[in-house]
Amino acid sequence: MVEIRREITKGEWSIIAPTRSDRPFDFSGEKKEGGAANANCPFCPGNEPKTPPEIFAIREGGGESDWKVRVFPNKYPALDKDGTAAVIEGDLYESMGGFGHHEVVAETPRHDVSLDQLGVEDIELVIRTYIERARDLVETREIKYVSIFRNQGKQAGASLSHPHSQIMATTFVPGLPGTEHRISRDFHERTGDCMHCRLIEAEKSEEERIVTETEGFFAFSPFGARFPYETHLYPKSHRSDFKEIESDEIGQFAKALKLTLGAMREKFGDFFPYNYYIHTGPSASVNQKEDLEKSYHWHLEIIPRLTTPAGFEWGSGNFINIIGPERGARELRQELA
Amino acid sequence: MVEIRREITKGEWSIIAPTRSDRPFDFSGEKKEGGAANANCPFCPGNEPKTPPEIFAIREGGGESDWKVRVFPNKYPALDKDGTAAVIEGDLYESMGGFGHHEVVAETPRHDVSLDQLGVEDIELVIRTYIERARDLVETREIKYVSIFRNQGKQAGASLSHPHSQIMATTFVPGLPGTEHRISRDFHERTGDCMHCRLIEAEKSEEERIVTETEGFFAFSPFGARFPYETHLYPKSHRSDFKEIESDEIGQFAKALKLTLGAMREKFGDFFPYNYYIHTGPSASVNQKEDLEKSYHWHLEIIPRLTTPAGFEWGSGNFINIIGPERGARELRQELA
Repeated sequence: MVEIRREITKGEWSIIAPTRSDRPFDFSGEKKEGGAANANCPFCPGNEPKTPPEIFAIREGGGESDWKVRVFPNKYPALDKDGTAAVIEGDLYESMGGFGHHEVVAETPRHDVSLDQLGVEDIELVIRTYIERARDLVETREIKYVSIFRNQGKQAGASLSHPHSQIMATTFVPGLPGTEHRISRDFHERTGDCMHCRLIEAEKSEEERIVTETEGFFAFSPFGARFPYETHLYPKSHRSDFKEIESDEIGQFAKALKLTLGAMREKFGDFFPYNYYIHTGPSASVNQKEDLEKSYHWHLEIIPRLTTPAGFEWGSGNFINIIGPERGARELRQELA
Repeated sequence: MVEIRREITKGEWSIIAPTRSDRPFDFSGEKKEGGAANANCPFCPGNEPKTPPEIFAIREGGGESDWKVRVFPNKYPALDKDGTAAVIEGDLYESMGGFGHHEVVAETPRHDVSLDQLGVEDIELVIRTYIERARDLVETREIKYVSIFRNQGKQAGASLSHPHSQIMATTFVPGLPGTEHRISRDFHERTGDCMHCRLIEAEKSEEERIVTETEGFFAFSPFGARFPYETHLYPKSHRSDFKEIESDEIGQFAKALKLTLGAMREKFGDFFPYNYYIHTGPSASVNQKEDLEKSYHWHLEIIPRLTTPAGFEWGSGNFINIIGPERGARELRQELA
């Protein structure tokens, strides 16, 4: 049984999910096992019965295994799609039921590639899948936020090596997006501007933290980057909600993502460890959605996992970046030159 | 040159410290190298000239190497003790100079032990050293908070295996202690009580999350624990500021720490990876110190590093705990039975 509990001294929700302790691990070291297809991999074509029933797929042919992208529930979910969302309030102990959705997006039938090695059109299909699932999930009762993220490599917390992303739809707005929403709203109230649009303009003119730029997207390492080579990828057009992205922007997003991750792969090697996640406005059912349309600006953040956060970081909530964003961005630009 | 910069979208300070990228790494796997003393270890007795000049030591004899505990500046500091603390404000870019102190506490002359394998009296000396350094450092200009923490094992971010802690004195109150201070103050305003004293009482009567209890200290796994086996160790007497601990409490603290870490070592093995850190009230120069004397309660938090935070955790700021605090505490209690 999953339960979501408030860590009262820190104010944040923790997901207590003992069911997840059973999940398998296929990494032996950091190398890719098997070839283009792997008989033991539950995410490979031909092994569809090994996953819970399919939720969504983009297919090229009519056969069960003819998919290009395939979505199914996580077999070891951190959230309970049949659970309750009932809140139990208390002075010291506050909790709610573990209701939510936890899905896996198998990004390609190929076992032995990384996302950025796919063609732009294939990456586009992955992004279209994110959008479809986000649109569907926010319609579910009580869902307040849809987290879309990707883990590559054991060091980045991936347990299976087949290229995949994950989606978690929660009954609460998570801490970090919630903080970004609040800060963006305050900035907008104070200045009348979208903080993120202002940041994009400023970074363009400062130049030294730019990683790459395409027609519709802009990638830079933020001034206060927490991690070496941390890169934020923004749509140039102001839009608070990822899932309302225009159809013609999707290809541009795929291209910018391929370029940015490709630069990192050149620098750090195949299957280098990283996480990315999309930060977006909350779902339609959250009160402040209207405010956020003007003040918030969706984006994707990539954090290569090259250093190990230690006692200072966990104890303080602040980070030590031993590379710095100017050097990080310069080195990534050099890979693209 | 160190610079402290605001990550504006998240509101937190990041320490940009390129000097730290040169530090050495002595781990080959997770095992201890060498015996009780190691000729190559800069923290071992006899190698004192390999560290920057000593700041503080507790000695048994008169010789340079006759120390029991020894403190010196970190050779690869994340803060600059000769730097400026000047703040540069801006709408989008806010920064301050990298002024601060970053020290190493060599906890014992022995290379091949873990902290909890020392006798209670020797652990007491380590705690006395923390107190001495914290008292001295808060007197320094501009220092607002002293972070005391410990990393054991490569997976927990330690780069050298000789038993040691670190101290970082910063010109800002870090994000997480700052959040705890605010939440504790709000609770006190609302109820007239210290939230932490209330928590200790509640956990005592709930019983199921208790890890251990000694005369003056109480260790439990919090209701909303973020990490498997996360344990918080509290003094039973209300006190906001760690460095104002009474002399007779120090031995009790050492004993409780030895018991708690010892239970974890029994369960996870010698030199299991973990971080601990002390959360305390801010320094005397911070405005709200007086409020916090009633509302805040210092404590130490231990997080075994058994799982890898991934895209969900980094993107959301929330955590998935696959063990849960009741099971975690029960298993640790069993090691102490």
